[in-house]
Amino acid sequence: MELGLYTFADVSPEPGPGTIGPHERLRNLIEEIELADQVGLDVFGLGEHHRPDYAASAPVVALAAAAERTKRIKLTSAVTVLSSDDPVRVFQQFATLDLLSGGRAEIMAGRGSFIESFPLFGYNLEDYDELFAEKLDLLLAIRDQVKVTWHGKLRAPINGRGVYPRPFQDKLPIWIAIGGTPQSAARAGALGLPLALAIIGGEPARFAPLFEIYREAARRAGNDPATLATSLNVHGFIAETTEKAADDFYAPQAEVMNRIGRERGWGPTSRAHFDHARGPGGALFVG
Amino acid sequence: MELGLYTFADVSPEPGPGTIGPHERLRNLIEEIELADQVGLDVFGLGEHHRPDYAASAPVVALAAAAERTKRIKLTSAVTVLSSDDPVRVFQQFATLDLLSGGRAEIMAGRGSFIESFPLFGYNLEDYDELFAEKLDLLLAIRDQVKVTWHGKLRAPINGRGVYPRPFQDKLPIWIAIGGTPQSAARAGALGLPLALAIIGGEPARFAPLFEIYREAARRAGNDPATLATSLNVHGFIAETTEKAADDFYAPQAEVMNRIGRERGWGPTSRAHFDHARGPGGALFVG
Repeated sequence: MELGLYTFADVSPEPGPGTIGPHERLRNLIEEIELADQVGLDVFGLGEHHRPDYAASAPVVALAAAAERTKRIKLTSAVTVLSSDDPVRVFQQFATLDLLSGGRAEIMAGRGSFIESFPLFGYNLEDYDELFAEKLDLLLAIRDQVKVTWHGKLRAPINGRGVYPRPFQDKLPIWIAIGGTPQSAARAGALGLPLALAIIGGEPARFAPLFEIYREAARRAGNDPATLATSLNVHGFIAETTEKAADDFYAPQAEVMNRIGRERGWGPTSRAHFDHARGPGGALFVG
Repeated sequence: MELGLYTFADVSPEPGPGTIGPHERLRNLIEEIELADQVGLDVFGLGEHHRPDYAASAPVVALAAAAERTKRIKLTSAVTVLSSDDPVRVFQQFATLDLLSGGRAEIMAGRGSFIESFPLFGYNLEDYDELFAEKLDLLLAIRDQVKVTWHGKLRAPINGRGVYPRPFQDKLPIWIAIGGTPQSAARAGALGLPLALAIIGGEPARFAPLFEIYREAARRAGNDPATLATSLNVHGFIAETTEKAADDFYAPQAEVMNRIGRERGWGPTSRAHFDHARGPGGALFVG
């Protein structure tokens, strides 16, 4: 088993006293990754967002800086919103990170939970799933061969062109990150790709069938499930005692969930809800 | 006056004894930038290529790694092929580099001398200049305002969307890099942007009128030429004596010029040609 951290590099949306801006946040981020490496964590993931409340719209750039401050920790995106990016650029950037870090780069590709990137880069949300399927297909084609010939519906074709530089690792690890959609779990299994499941709320036990779907799809496609890695991405907070962790974490966690919740029509959160979620049946790892 | 270095991070196209691969080349590159910072050079530029003989298809990723090894040197692309990239991504990536480095990022934007990126990313070479004009217009719009409303012909519109994170510097420096086209010099002047001129061959004196065109276009647009920075990018090599520099530099320079020349229909180079080019009227800075 491996343990790691991921973050979206959250900042204060509006500058003011006691708030943290993107420069300080990114410098802190590099220190965090350096410390994670020193204490022996296995992986650090950085999310991609295109919003004023997160400083990481270009995770690979910050990960490259972190590569210079670390020796052994794996560096991954959590996630790369592949649907609204270009697979050639994504591969080139992570191959560069992989070369710089001596083989520590990974890509965690997802369809995107936040959808700000679609109108920003001129994509149609009606193509949400098809964009991901096509771009994943191209990304895997680039990983498998130097000279790529590829045709799709939503991205320009490539006719026998090389994609450079090639990464340090023979096969740059590409994970599929999902938020709970069974079809996405099945796709990852069928393609024989490692699966990362994000559980932000609800009971983790209810998500277990997704791994069954994943393994069954893998078997049907001839991929041995025993060789496929899986991962859980959850919200967590650690302090010297469980109660201190809960008390320190509640306010910022509630602020984030209410801010995002207002956009998505969730009801407001409460301390009771928080305390339930950090219990044995909940998705918050706090202690 | 400022002095700097730029490179394309050239590698051996085919692996073999005595050759250098992309991992070693990128590690050497970071050491070079670190040394350039230590000896007091002002700027380091990294070019973008999509070929087996260059390791930098994602310059900003390597520059972010270099930011962690340096304290004061400016970090720039030389150049970003803006025509075949997305200005939102370019801005986000260099804003991230700028935040990480405490305000040392610059963008050198060009139309592209090599054209490998156009078919790779699905662009039409018939739109060569219009792509650059449109994307530069969008890049400058993003620099000038957080929330962008922009419409063009060749890139999807943006309707009041924010682009984050914002850079460390109030105004991320954006240079226009040209190879000798008078219209490009005039465009840079009219927009009031600093101009970098690459002189790879021929007599530097013949390029002087480009700066006149640039300054005249600036004056006509109401931009004071005295406030506009200009730069020369040339091939160079330094050794303990002039003769040693020439002898050491000739073979690799000839190999590159002949390799590229075969693609472009140039005649083969010779030592006589090289010796002329490193003379007072030539474009090679060797000594």
